[in-house]
Amino acid sequence: MQISLDYTNMMADAIGAEYGVSDDELAALSSRTAEIHAQICQSREQGELPFFDLPEESEMLAEVQVLAAELRQSFENIIVLGIGGSALGTAAVMRALSLTHNLQGSEQRPGAPRLFVLDNVDPDGFSAHLALCHPAKTCFLVVSKSGATVETSCQFLLARQWVETAVGTQNFQDHFVLITDPENGVLRALAQQHGYRSCTIPPGVGGRFSVLTPVGLLPLACAGVDIAALMQGAADFAKKVCHGDLMTNPAYLNATLQYLAYQKGLKISVMMPYSDRLRDIADWFRQLWAESLGKRYGLNGQELFVGPTPINALGTTDQHSQVQLYMEGPVDKVVTFIAVDRFANDLKMSKYDAAPQLDYLSGHSMAELIGVELLATTAALTRNHRPNCTLRVSEVSPESVGALLYLFEVQTLFAGYLFEVNPLDQPGVEEGKQFTYALMGREGFEEKGREYASIQSRSKPRLLDC
Amino acid sequence: MQISLDYTNMMADAIGAEYGVSDDELAALSSRTAEIHAQICQSREQGELPFFDLPEESEMLAEVQVLAAELRQSFENIIVLGIGGSALGTAAVMRALSLTHNLQGSEQRPGAPRLFVLDNVDPDGFSAHLALCHPAKTCFLVVSKSGATVETSCQFLLARQWVETAVGTQNFQDHFVLITDPENGVLRALAQQHGYRSCTIPPGVGGRFSVLTPVGLLPLACAGVDIAALMQGAADFAKKVCHGDLMTNPAYLNATLQYLAYQKGLKISVMMPYSDRLRDIADWFRQLWAESLGKRYGLNGQELFVGPTPINALGTTDQHSQVQLYMEGPVDKVVTFIAVDRFANDLKMSKYDAAPQLDYLSGHSMAELIGVELLATTAALTRNHRPNCTLRVSEVSPESVGALLYLFEVQTLFAGYLFEVNPLDQPGVEEGKQFTYALMGREGFEEKGREYASIQSRSKPRLLDC
Repeated sequence: MQISLDYTNMMADAIGAEYGVSDDELAALSSRTAEIHAQICQSREQGELPFFDLPEESEMLAEVQVLAAELRQSFENIIVLGIGGSALGTAAVMRALSLTHNLQGSEQRPGAPRLFVLDNVDPDGFSAHLALCHPAKTCFLVVSKSGATVETSCQFLLARQWVETAVGTQNFQDHFVLITDPENGVLRALAQQHGYRSCTIPPGVGGRFSVLTPVGLLPLACAGVDIAALMQGAADFAKKVCHGDLMTNPAYLNATLQYLAYQKGLKISVMMPYSDRLRDIADWFRQLWAESLGKRYGLNGQELFVGPTPINALGTTDQHSQVQLYMEGPVDKVVTFIAVDRFANDLKMSKYDAAPQLDYLSGHSMAELIGVELLATTAALTRNHRPNCTLRVSEVSPESVGALLYLFEVQTLFAGYLFEVNPLDQPGVEEGKQFTYALMGREGFEEKGREYASIQSRSKPRLLDC
Repeated sequence: MQISLDYTNMMADAIGAEYGVSDDELAALSSRTAEIHAQICQSREQGELPFFDLPEESEMLAEVQVLAAELRQSFENIIVLGIGGSALGTAAVMRALSLTHNLQGSEQRPGAPRLFVLDNVDPDGFSAHLALCHPAKTCFLVVSKSGATVETSCQFLLARQWVETAVGTQNFQDHFVLITDPENGVLRALAQQHGYRSCTIPPGVGGRFSVLTPVGLLPLACAGVDIAALMQGAADFAKKVCHGDLMTNPAYLNATLQYLAYQKGLKISVMMPYSDRLRDIADWFRQLWAESLGKRYGLNGQELFVGPTPINALGTTDQHSQVQLYMEGPVDKVVTFIAVDRFANDLKMSKYDAAPQLDYLSGHSMAELIGVELLATTAALTRNHRPNCTLRVSEVSPESVGALLYLFEVQTLFAGYLFEVNPLDQPGVEEGKQFTYALMGREGFEEKGREYASIQSRSKPRLLDC
């Protein structure tokens, strides 16, 4: 398994000096990189960045494998209840490694249950998925670090009622695994006092860095993904991104290129895999990048707002949707392509006599075409002075996906240091949560309810009914 | 069916003068609106904007219904081969009206085949979907206006081989319907000379405005969607968006608000439905908005690049992924929420004695929660001076989805006039196509091949292998 980063078209000699990065700019950041790396090492030593060491947690892996084997024996459906970091990694890896898993007629791995990731509180979506499953054959993995996530709490209450109605008050707990903090929160209390099985999210690992904990590993293992290989891929790749040399550490280098582009006014960062399997890796990354770097801070009494806006796209599909804008719209984007060298399948086109206009395709394969289209799009963007780079993986496998996850996590952490924000918190979502509690009538949030009312009353309502 | 637009939080009195729109700014654009409306009317009269009249094309609708009934009798799988505008509308409406249609155990509409929309040339994705289907029971709808789309040509050649191998050279044509231009292109020639069934994409209707032609209607009808109601919803709503009064035409007003926000530096436009069903309407809109408005033009010898960047998000899900950035990141976004008043299902939470911490939820329903979260997010954004507006539909139905499609199409057209770009072309994707042809060795593109090589040779390669 190999990964390469081609950043030719990020540089000034390829796309011009206005938006291109120069060698001098990179060189100027190399000592800063070494400093940040030293800080990261120190934080790791102090136990503040445990996500780095997850791929080596063989005991955690073994425990998950045992539990997953048990669940696979007992259930036909595994339903993840979780949102944000509790859901996105699982969904992304599942798609990468088992593309049509839940579809009728698909060649499921032997004995693997279906896996649904329900990450919303839409009653139509929730009901439609429950309707596919028999409660006696269904296990819910309830994922919330704090145990207090309102969406997950709602899902859990409803799923519990649904299962209890079907299997009775004695056994419904067997249909749940609670994945949460080792000590705190309502889910942990339930596990301790009411006979639910549970898994632990290691302390200090935030939601968006948790895919390589039971949060992601348990559901993936249930569905038949080789989580040992996933972890091994991350562990092997860790060696390549845990040193302080800017020009040879792909995580640091990619973060730095993105940072420099942002400084030049390119505040939108597109990630565009040319691979159906890798599509949702870009969606998982969207949370990682947005929530880690999108931050407000005060500097000399002035309020500053920073953070690149991540966008997920899919090649070739979005060539017919977004590329017009990337090519001719405002110069405010960096595109990171993800290329795949070898697909598991390929299909060769043969000549069709009735359509000589299509002869130019005969003898070529679909894998060739998708590869060529990526090169063509790259060239066209470059000629239009639009910065772009390409991450290339030799193939989509548990190992390469594990490596990508690790790469992007380290890249995001490092970018946090460059942008001088805390990449591990998310203070900006707090107020919305509190308004939600207030509007749900939760005790203790009455003041927030009054604030909500005052925001509403402040401005003239503008409503167009049609 | 009702739709309303609440734009309170777009206005200066709600979010402040820096990013908020004033009544004066709206008033100043009202005569411009009337002028543009007159131009649109004139173009319609000259037959240049036929998408406006699609909902009234009862003959087209009837023909599609007859063909769909026939295909539903004969096939268990309908596979759309198409990309961009040939795929996005179908996928969006299908998700809105038949959320879990293809999943094992789902309550499919009686007699409705599964529907797959394959909009990429990834050999793994393509193969995985073919593996779900038996060729004898599968019909492909090949959608390409020009007939020349390279991705669709590739898919078609491979699907043809696959079916021919299974059913023989005599009958394979019966497994295809070609949806294309009435006169030109290779698909039309095949229909005329080689016995394929076909449908016509009305001349002058571009890909991204084609969902209410056989492009979208045929696959949707095959899968059991009530396309007559979809068209009726669009037809009824047409009355509300085809007049020139800015303040009461929701399509014009919404376009104008977006345009004014863009002028204030808010160049990113987020669409965030709080509805699993409407999720991909935002994805369909992403093409419409990006490809129609993202344009380069010369003005007084200077090159200008315009166009808002659309982003699709999903509530509540992306509250735990993107909202941190929307709340505290750069002030460069407008968020358009889509709210649903009544869900088809609802689920009420009851008290769970073992978890008193969750008592605040008991007695409430999931629909209440998703509604409250939208209000909470709206209030938090507004307090942070972040512009946002809410489109509210009474329910998700064929009628309301038809209305939304029509609303957004008219809004996009009108926005094109405001931004002074041609919303109907996409010149920026041409170069990438030509590079693709060159790299595939197509005759006549040798010069383009040399250009490609010269772009590659111009800059120093920068490759980090790991």
